[in-house]
Amino acid sequence: MAKPHFKFWGWGTVDEGLGEAEARELAKRNAAFFGVSDFARTPPPRAEEIALAAPRIKPPSRLAAICSSTAEDRLIHTYGKSFPDSVHAFARNFPNPPDVVARPHTEEEVVAVLDWADSVGAAVIPFGAGSSVVGGIEPRFGNKYGATITLNLQGMDRVLEVDAFSRTARIQGGVLGPDLERQLAPHGLTLRHFPQSFQFSTLGGWIATRSGGHFATLYTHIDDLVESTRVVTPAGIAESRRLPGSGAGPSPDRLFIGSEGILGVITEAWMRLQKRPTFRASASVHFTDYAKAVEAVRVISQAGLYPANCRLIDAEEAADMGAGDGSKHLLVLAFENADHPVVTWMERALEIAADHGGAFDKAAAEKADAHRAGASGAWRDAFIRAPYFREVLTGLGVISDTFETAITWDRFAAFHAGVKDATHKAIKAVTGRPGRVTCRFTHVYPDGPAPYFSFRALGRREAMLEEWQAIKDAASDALIKMGGTITHHHAVGRDHRPWYDQQRPELFAGALRAAKKKLDPKGLLNPGVLIDP
Amino acid sequence: MAKPHFKFWGWGTVDEGLGEAEARELAKRNAAFFGVSDFARTPPPRAEEIALAAPRIKPPSRLAAICSSTAEDRLIHTYGKSFPDSVHAFARNFPNPPDVVARPHTEEEVVAVLDWADSVGAAVIPFGAGSSVVGGIEPRFGNKYGATITLNLQGMDRVLEVDAFSRTARIQGGVLGPDLERQLAPHGLTLRHFPQSFQFSTLGGWIATRSGGHFATLYTHIDDLVESTRVVTPAGIAESRRLPGSGAGPSPDRLFIGSEGILGVITEAWMRLQKRPTFRASASVHFTDYAKAVEAVRVISQAGLYPANCRLIDAEEAADMGAGDGSKHLLVLAFENADHPVVTWMERALEIAADHGGAFDKAAAEKADAHRAGASGAWRDAFIRAPYFREVLTGLGVISDTFETAITWDRFAAFHAGVKDATHKAIKAVTGRPGRVTCRFTHVYPDGPAPYFSFRALGRREAMLEEWQAIKDAASDALIKMGGTITHHHAVGRDHRPWYDQQRPELFAGALRAAKKKLDPKGLLNPGVLIDP
Repeated sequence: MAKPHFKFWGWGTVDEGLGEAEARELAKRNAAFFGVSDFARTPPPRAEEIALAAPRIKPPSRLAAICSSTAEDRLIHTYGKSFPDSVHAFARNFPNPPDVVARPHTEEEVVAVLDWADSVGAAVIPFGAGSSVVGGIEPRFGNKYGATITLNLQGMDRVLEVDAFSRTARIQGGVLGPDLERQLAPHGLTLRHFPQSFQFSTLGGWIATRSGGHFATLYTHIDDLVESTRVVTPAGIAESRRLPGSGAGPSPDRLFIGSEGILGVITEAWMRLQKRPTFRASASVHFTDYAKAVEAVRVISQAGLYPANCRLIDAEEAADMGAGDGSKHLLVLAFENADHPVVTWMERALEIAADHGGAFDKAAAEKADAHRAGASGAWRDAFIRAPYFREVLTGLGVISDTFETAITWDRFAAFHAGVKDATHKAIKAVTGRPGRVTCRFTHVYPDGPAPYFSFRALGRREAMLEEWQAIKDAASDALIKMGGTITHHHAVGRDHRPWYDQQRPELFAGALRAAKKKLDPKGLLNPGVLIDP
Repeated sequence: MAKPHFKFWGWGTVDEGLGEAEARELAKRNAAFFGVSDFARTPPPRAEEIALAAPRIKPPSRLAAICSSTAEDRLIHTYGKSFPDSVHAFARNFPNPPDVVARPHTEEEVVAVLDWADSVGAAVIPFGAGSSVVGGIEPRFGNKYGATITLNLQGMDRVLEVDAFSRTARIQGGVLGPDLERQLAPHGLTLRHFPQSFQFSTLGGWIATRSGGHFATLYTHIDDLVESTRVVTPAGIAESRRLPGSGAGPSPDRLFIGSEGILGVITEAWMRLQKRPTFRASASVHFTDYAKAVEAVRVISQAGLYPANCRLIDAEEAADMGAGDGSKHLLVLAFENADHPVVTWMERALEIAADHGGAFDKAAAEKADAHRAGASGAWRDAFIRAPYFREVLTGLGVISDTFETAITWDRFAAFHAGVKDATHKAIKAVTGRPGRVTCRFTHVYPDGPAPYFSFRALGRREAMLEEWQAIKDAASDALIKMGGTITHHHAVGRDHRPWYDQQRPELFAGALRAAKKKLDPKGLLNPGVLIDP
């Protein structure tokens, strides 16, 4: 499959994005929202506008064929897709590009690149497709290393083996979402892991960042879909056994799942797959009372029904996404199965929703594709388009970002109010005018939801970064103070470090540092992510 | 709740065990099976028969009140409940008792004991209730340490806080199963974690050993029921946040879950609870063809039905447990829920069973307590009694043990045949006569089952240990060679080390050693378990 040609300054590929009409409409909508009229757009950068420092190292001849130091390659591997990344890109500010981009096609080549890095003291950044929104792949570590090599793994993109009997497959870490599904389809199988970045992220990236996917309950993170891993570290290769379950010591896989490239490069994994679902039921439920909607979701999450989708979108966010007029909260419910009809499950979930004041069209609920129609459908389409908005919004001076967390049910109401309030206040204090803060649940557990907040503020174009940072700090401080996690599925990277450092037990950080020292003695892998040496 | 008075030489408490008639019947049945007539029974040991070496250390006065060096206390903490433990006990062989048994009631006392151990260079063995069957709590490490302190945690037995809203509770690690459920009952909640050792094991022990519980699918191990942990290590206290889900780095909890006492003492955990189920359906399904029964279980496990019970017991094991005549394999199926009837789920599971030749009484299947009646009920009663058999069998010279593992579906048929064959051959070679090797599934996953093997052989009383070891070696070698795990839920301890060392990635062992060095710099905690320094 031909590799996508990614933008170096925004979401997705060079031939995708907002059309001119869509961009103008988005600008108009935001101008109205913020009560301004003069919305001059900054155009996105072109590669020719940016002067990069010369690469500090040159690959040895045996690696020359898989290495590149072209300006475009270095630009594409400089930033992820966060708001500050977007601001830097629009400001034509690329002070820390990698010196070399290596594109291995085999594990031997991964080993060879690590050996080379070791010999020249270069930092190595394992890179899936660069959709990090937490500074996870940015070479931002001063002059501590002689150079940076970014290891783009998209050349390792094959499904190597399928065990249809156990519904598992051995898959290379560098495969992009759509290519993975294309290779599984002939077997009637699917990973069914669809993060928002699905088209622009890889299996290895999902595992390294504990990605959150399609399923709102049960198999929420990639973690549970991993049967075994194969990881190349500077100290050698670690491969775990294919086991459906084990109780033999702490799980080796769980050390690498979420390690964000600091312990090794995930070259392969055996993954647990699903049969393509043939039975579906979905519904859009509307609530006027948010507290009651939350309570409905709590009861559903504790009922042992395990919906594939159970996403509560607050009224403002629904309206922002073109689903409704802002007066109703929207619960998108879906069940799916490859073995049997799921109507009984859906009926019980809707009964619970109705008990809490939820309203829905019962006839539509039993249609398999209801989640692609009506309010849910509008929201779903907007969800897939949303990451493109920033390529216009940043140019307009609009600070637009999201943050996500998880919290137990007993604390949710105060937490939700407190985090929203802190974010609103920070927006007002920093920008001088009110902004927007909305919330949806991406995943729910019997003991609590994973709330996902979106915010927008009108910044001053010359100070957007500082303004964003002040808002981000206020929101993050609030959610850490009130007991949440700094990330449910976006990962820690470099940007979340101040709050992650408060959150994780200090002794665990010590244990992780010791483990890293063993696997990566010179500390070359993704420096600054998760821990310092 | 009064603490049980445990036997030092066998399963359970001093006032429980086999009655004389039951013992005689068991002896008769085994004599018939092995074709022998002269079955002289060795009586269990009495404490007075055993001379222990004098304790090598004396507690400081500030700890005297919680420490004991009485013979009985030292005897009870010398062995777990494995077959070799039983042989040693019947042989009156107690060369390695702990010197002191400490019984802390507070975390401060745990810290004080660790400090004392540090100051005198004593090894410390965290001890729940001593039901380890893998040498997990035995002070078997020569003279490397000046003394051994066993830390009996049963004094830390309280449910400290209940959050009924999130269905979770903060619970001390030393609580025994029945006492835990007694404290949760007034809240209408239950952990529903019922290992076979339920009465004789603790929450902390379950977490430290990745215990397998009641649920045959989904929440099979204790791992998924843990919301957060609090662990006292020699380097300080590590406490993780209460989070329903998180993607912030590798999971801190997963490092301690399965750490078998080598990293710290689990003093508290927030645990995910269930409402007591009010809807139940259960059924006993019979199969004449084992391969078809296995296939039925595979299809059920991949159907997204999530039965609470889905245990396939082969015909010989069913017969051994008084359920059937040895011609039919028995599948025990059960569904349970606190929110809604589960008949739809059961009907679909039975449909799948029928498609594969399973026969059942449809009327009985819808009765809630069917699993306590008929063949399933007979098996269930025997299951709870089975651990007591050894107190007679060992005295008879019968080698009786179990081992358990997990394997993917694609390899199961060859694996099952190979492991059974290797075990049968070893029994024949070692004892000169055929034995019994049976199998059941304790847990099943979409990608494979967790087979649990039981074996019996007639040993020579003076050589039972060596004979057992030869059979255990053959069985373990086979299951490791054929791709299984050395344990699905019995843990590694000291006895499984040779095979665990082959199974886990060497680099993971290195990382774990480094983590231990950080948390337990002097290597005092449970030496020899999982890793060597």
